[in-house]
Amino acid sequence: MTTRGFTSDNASGVHPAVLAALTAANEGHAPSYGADPLTAALEERVRDLFGADAQVFPVFNGTGANVVAVQALLQRWDAAVATADSHMVNDESTAPQLVGGARIVTVPSVAGRATPELLAPAFDAYDGTVHHARPAAITLAQSTELGTTYTAAELAALTTFARSRGARVHIDGARLANAAARLGATLRELTTDVGVDVLSFGGTKNGLLLGDAIVVLDPALAEPVARLRKASTQLASKMRFVSAQLLALLEDGLWRRNAAHANDAADLLAARLRPLGVEPVYPVQANAVFIPVPPAALPAVVADAPVLAWDRAAGVVRAVASFDTTEEDVDALVAALGRHF
Amino acid sequence: MTTRGFTSDNASGVHPAVLAALTAANEGHAPSYGADPLTAALEERVRDLFGADAQVFPVFNGTGANVVAVQALLQRWDAAVATADSHMVNDESTAPQLVGGARIVTVPSVAGRATPELLAPAFDAYDGTVHHARPAAITLAQSTELGTTYTAAELAALTTFARSRGARVHIDGARLANAAARLGATLRELTTDVGVDVLSFGGTKNGLLLGDAIVVLDPALAEPVARLRKASTQLASKMRFVSAQLLALLEDGLWRRNAAHANDAADLLAARLRPLGVEPVYPVQANAVFIPVPPAALPAVVADAPVLAWDRAAGVVRAVASFDTTEEDVDALVAALGRHF
Amino acid sequence: MTTRGFTSDNASGVHPAVLAALTAANEGHAPSYGADPLTAALEERVRDLFGADAQVFPVFNGTGANVVAVQALLQRWDAAVATADSHMVNDESTAPQLVGGARIVTVPSVAGRATPELLAPAFDAYDGTVHHARPAAITLAQSTELGTTYTAAELAALTTFARSRGARVHIDGARLANAAARLGATLRELTTDVGVDVLSFGGTKNGLLLGDAIVVLDPALAEPVARLRKASTQLASKMRFVSAQLLALLEDGLWRRNAAHANDAADLLAARLRPLGVEPVYPVQANAVFIPVPPAALPAVVADAPVLAWDRAAGVVRAVASFDTTEEDVDALVAALGRHF
Amino acid sequence: MTTRGFTSDNASGVHPAVLAALTAANEGHAPSYGADPLTAALEERVRDLFGADAQVFPVFNGTGANVVAVQALLQRWDAAVATADSHMVNDESTAPQLVGGARIVTVPSVAGRATPELLAPAFDAYDGTVHHARPAAITLAQSTELGTTYTAAELAALTTFARSRGARVHIDGARLANAAARLGATLRELTTDVGVDVLSFGGTKNGLLLGDAIVVLDPALAEPVARLRKASTQLASKMRFVSAQLLALLEDGLWRRNAAHANDAADLLAARLRPLGVEPVYPVQANAVFIPVPPAALPAVVADAPVLAWDRAAGVVRAVASFDTTEEDVDALVAALGRHF
Repeated sequence: MTTRGFTSDNASGVHPAVLAALTAANEGHAPSYGADPLTAALEERVRDLFGADAQVFPVFNGTGANVVAVQALLQRWDAAVATADSHMVNDESTAPQLVGGARIVTVPSVAGRATPELLAPAFDAYDGTVHHARPAAITLAQSTELGTTYTAAELAALTTFARSRGARVHIDGARLANAAARLGATLRELTTDVGVDVLSFGGTKNGLLLGDAIVVLDPALAEPVARLRKASTQLASKMRFVSAQLLALLEDGLWRRNAAHANDAADLLAARLRPLGVEPVYPVQANAVFIPVPPAALPAVVADAPVLAWDRAAGVVRAVASFDTTEEDVDALVAALGRHF
Repeated sequence: MTTRGFTSDNASGVHPAVLAALTAANEGHAPSYGADPLTAALEERVRDLFGADAQVFPVFNGTGANVVAVQALLQRWDAAVATADSHMVNDESTAPQLVGGARIVTVPSVAGRATPELLAPAFDAYDGTVHHARPAAITLAQSTELGTTYTAAELAALTTFARSRGARVHIDGARLANAAARLGATLRELTTDVGVDVLSFGGTKNGLLLGDAIVVLDPALAEPVARLRKASTQLASKMRFVSAQLLALLEDGLWRRNAAHANDAADLLAARLRPLGVEPVYPVQANAVFIPVPPAALPAVVADAPVLAWDRAAGVVRAVASFDTTEEDVDALVAALGRHF
Repeated sequence: MTTRGFTSDNASGVHPAVLAALTAANEGHAPSYGADPLTAALEERVRDLFGADAQVFPVFNGTGANVVAVQALLQRWDAAVATADSHMVNDESTAPQLVGGARIVTVPSVAGRATPELLAPAFDAYDGTVHHARPAAITLAQSTELGTTYTAAELAALTTFARSRGARVHIDGARLANAAARLGATLRELTTDVGVDVLSFGGTKNGLLLGDAIVVLDPALAEPVARLRKASTQLASKMRFVSAQLLALLEDGLWRRNAAHANDAADLLAARLRPLGVEPVYPVQANAVFIPVPPAALPAVVADAPVLAWDRAAGVVRAVASFDTTEEDVDALVAALGRHF
Repeated sequence: MTTRGFTSDNASGVHPAVLAALTAANEGHAPSYGADPLTAALEERVRDLFGADAQVFPVFNGTGANVVAVQALLQRWDAAVATADSHMVNDESTAPQLVGGARIVTVPSVAGRATPELLAPAFDAYDGTVHHARPAAITLAQSTELGTTYTAAELAALTTFARSRGARVHIDGARLANAAARLGATLRELTTDVGVDVLSFGGTKNGLLLGDAIVVLDPALAEPVARLRKASTQLASKMRFVSAQLLALLEDGLWRRNAAHANDAADLLAARLRPLGVEPVYPVQANAVFIPVPPAALPAVVADAPVLAWDRAAGVVRAVASFDTTEEDVDALVAALGRHF
């Protein structure tokens, strides 16, 4: 376990403050399934950060958070609209379909980002009849699967658009912290204040041992989320240990410091690549850098450097920085990559 | 969090050795999704304990373990047979149905235990036509939901019966450790050696922070289990932290010591109740004691004592001991209960 | 196709008036999916028979009617309660689970009939938490799977009970016509007037070529039924041909005449068996007669007589009369059965 | 019902020979669920037409045929690949997802037709890991949703490609008859002989009252298709009446005559439009004509002429000819359309 990885921000471990919080949480017995004081404290903290109506539902992982949150927005005859390059569409096997039968309709993106114009055809195609799944929700990743971000204004335009079409809005925030850190925004400014209905809030990729959360901003969604969390196998019995981690992340701005650190490392990587004549494929707006490599060299690159083969045909690898990525890690990566340019 | 609870063995926390293993696992980066050295070590350890063909798939919780393992035994037109009092039937909301559409057919039990005779009608009723779901699997809990156990000979009779009817066998082993400790058996003697096909192995209730595992004994099930684990939202990205806990539990017999401790505490509780004229409703064969109380007094009992209201109509509460239950805990519980007899 | 069968009322063919209506419907072109004049006429006729708020949704078969109607009553975390001997539980393979993941909880019956007392435990067991599927609906067959019926007063007591527990009521009316004919009741008296929310109305077993209908009595269910009918594969494009049959059945009391004829034939069968010392296992209250036979003789009976092996262990065969069953058919059946008593 | 429609080929009624067959089938009683002589005769006829290994499973409609056939090709962690413009993707609400949780991945088409080159990226994107749904099947419509056809050679190339990628092949043959008639090919030449595994064979749109069929060409698929037909609500009890229609269609070449008639009418429509300067948007290779209209005029066109608004943004309406479309119908349509060019 000595390889310092850039394949994903799930290669890193647990932030010391989170581990300390876990140890502290291991005091005696506690009520299960969320009736414990740490979960209550987390709920309070989430209200502070997202607004008085916000409700938090800790889950095990991002797959679970996304599947439960999106299903809570859909009736069984509805579809969610997502960009074709999104994680939920490409990297969750059949989870959205197997767990309750959700239908996802895809639209193109610009560098991972949806716009009202890109989304509109998915709604225009719906004629209101039973023959067609009703587009009842849009799900957007912030930061996106391609390492880009939405500004608050862009999000407001998207939620306004969605609402004008009778649709609700879910944010896949596995890396929301990275976006907020990059944009200098609060979590609330990127969610509650722009009309988001429900979001997945990522912890696993930002220094937790494991744990993510669904944050419900429209109180009417609390019941479906609570029920579907259980029915989708995502309810933790010893929930205090998930809540303790999330609380540690949300207290004292650790979420932002961790994310900013990863963002900075991604910037550093991009900066170190530039002198080699290498420009990222997408703007580096969070903690991921998509690096062009000659397609023929890609297999050697991924054998040699701890990056992910993103697009073998086009020749793109992905490097994602973590909360604990060091300058030495970046230098070592650049050295490994440099042998192949 | 100072209440010492008997409502369930998920009220307890993390065993110190498990917490230490987690801390030790937090060393640098590691490949995600199970390609790490700790998961490899766990796989090796599981082969030692369950046989050379055994394969382990860590998951987040028992719901996930059961849903994935049972689905792996079923085609979409099949049914699993379970006792009507089993956890999977009563305490998992719609998870077995929502995640992939499993059908479960129930039969009565004797004190939580199935027998070939009790199972037979579910198979006799099947005439082979498409009108009826094919009973393709049986799922048995060991120890059972009522705190009783199956001997190896009883399990062998059950798997022989199942096979004679063309069905496979799943063990819900959320408390398998308690059964093995009570019976003085190895894990293998209660699973591999008696013809079990796949089992859920419980960790959460035996001293883990969170984590259970599916152990596949028939190699043909490895592919469906691996695929369904992901598609059912149960694949951990930072899997080393689940594996590290399971490894700590399985190394050096901690699983057995923890379970035996809980079993002993349950025995102590039963022994302390007897002088009060209170006899458990079911034989105490693991770590759970089902205690009769006057139905009218039940609300006051559960308000006063950290036990679960099991059957309000009949007047039964459940007390489950944990790996860290102390004699003082038992005495305090008996004192609290004693006020109501 | 000359065997006159009693295995089920689906062995018979099409009533001449229905066939004539089909021929008449085959005039030119018509809008598809229900926008045709015959479907409009059917909708009008259903309002006449079931009340001004009633809405009809023709489907292909009883499986579809039941699956769609019950799903329309359930959220994905809910359960429907049915008697353990009901058709939907035993004879639909995994359809309720596969199509949308419905969970059905069973209770015992008395001769196929539920009572508030028998249903109550399924509701009492629910504690409101997410761990348990919410019992949100009851589904009752009228006439029942065992050939018995509910009076209007019994139904009113059941719907009152259901409502007191927050549940809705579905009637599986594959043989509702037989019950209404037997009870001398209108369709409305057995459904709308006693507080039923939605029903499956059987046509296939009462003289149609093929076709059943969902009748929605609570207008709030129209949208889910319409959507789920399509999503469950039960929407006919050339719907006029299903509607024309249902219209022929509902006009001019054909439904009642057909059902009464079948009921009378069942009565005749029971009367002819009595002198042989054979008493039906359940009261003959619709068109089915459950006949006791020596278990050892059962294989020979079903080889010899066109009846269904209902319970091989107990020794019961089922004979169901159709709209076109003749006295000669009954006599031939009695003669065939008589050889085995 | 006097409007002669071109909105779809489901606006037409029942061919007289099919209605006669239905009347003839209504003779006495018959075993249910396919154990009747007419279904046996259909099975024999299908073996004649598709080869000795072919097995036929009558169903109610095309939605059911497609959902069941494609699900039979998929494990719960697999995906089917379809063109983005296909009927199954766009016009079946959430049926593929709701009934068993199928995942469909889309690729672009050229005028409705897939090619190995267009399909390849969906397979190239799959890396074999559990994170991604395994592309286990391709589903192609013949004729396509845009009224084009695949030659036998093109199909052979597609099945060869699929097999090279470990995938099976389903044909949505709702209008297979139209393709075969157009190409002068036998049914077998377009299916069995080119390596198709399973197909939906359309009857409803080619002169049946209602009824389609799944034809299984790989015997290993018979069991899943038979089981899923029931579990998907598509098993008819009075199956003789579906089989009788299909038999009438397949005997004596009625399927081809009906299809050829509709194709000819489509040709005639295209020919009559040409002098008006109107060229179909796609090649007319079956019985559908896609007609360009000024987008601003489209609402008036569909109000005035019995055609389907296909693409409101681009300005395209669809006219589909039926087995009974007359020259007068075509002339009336051209006259109605002509007012808007």
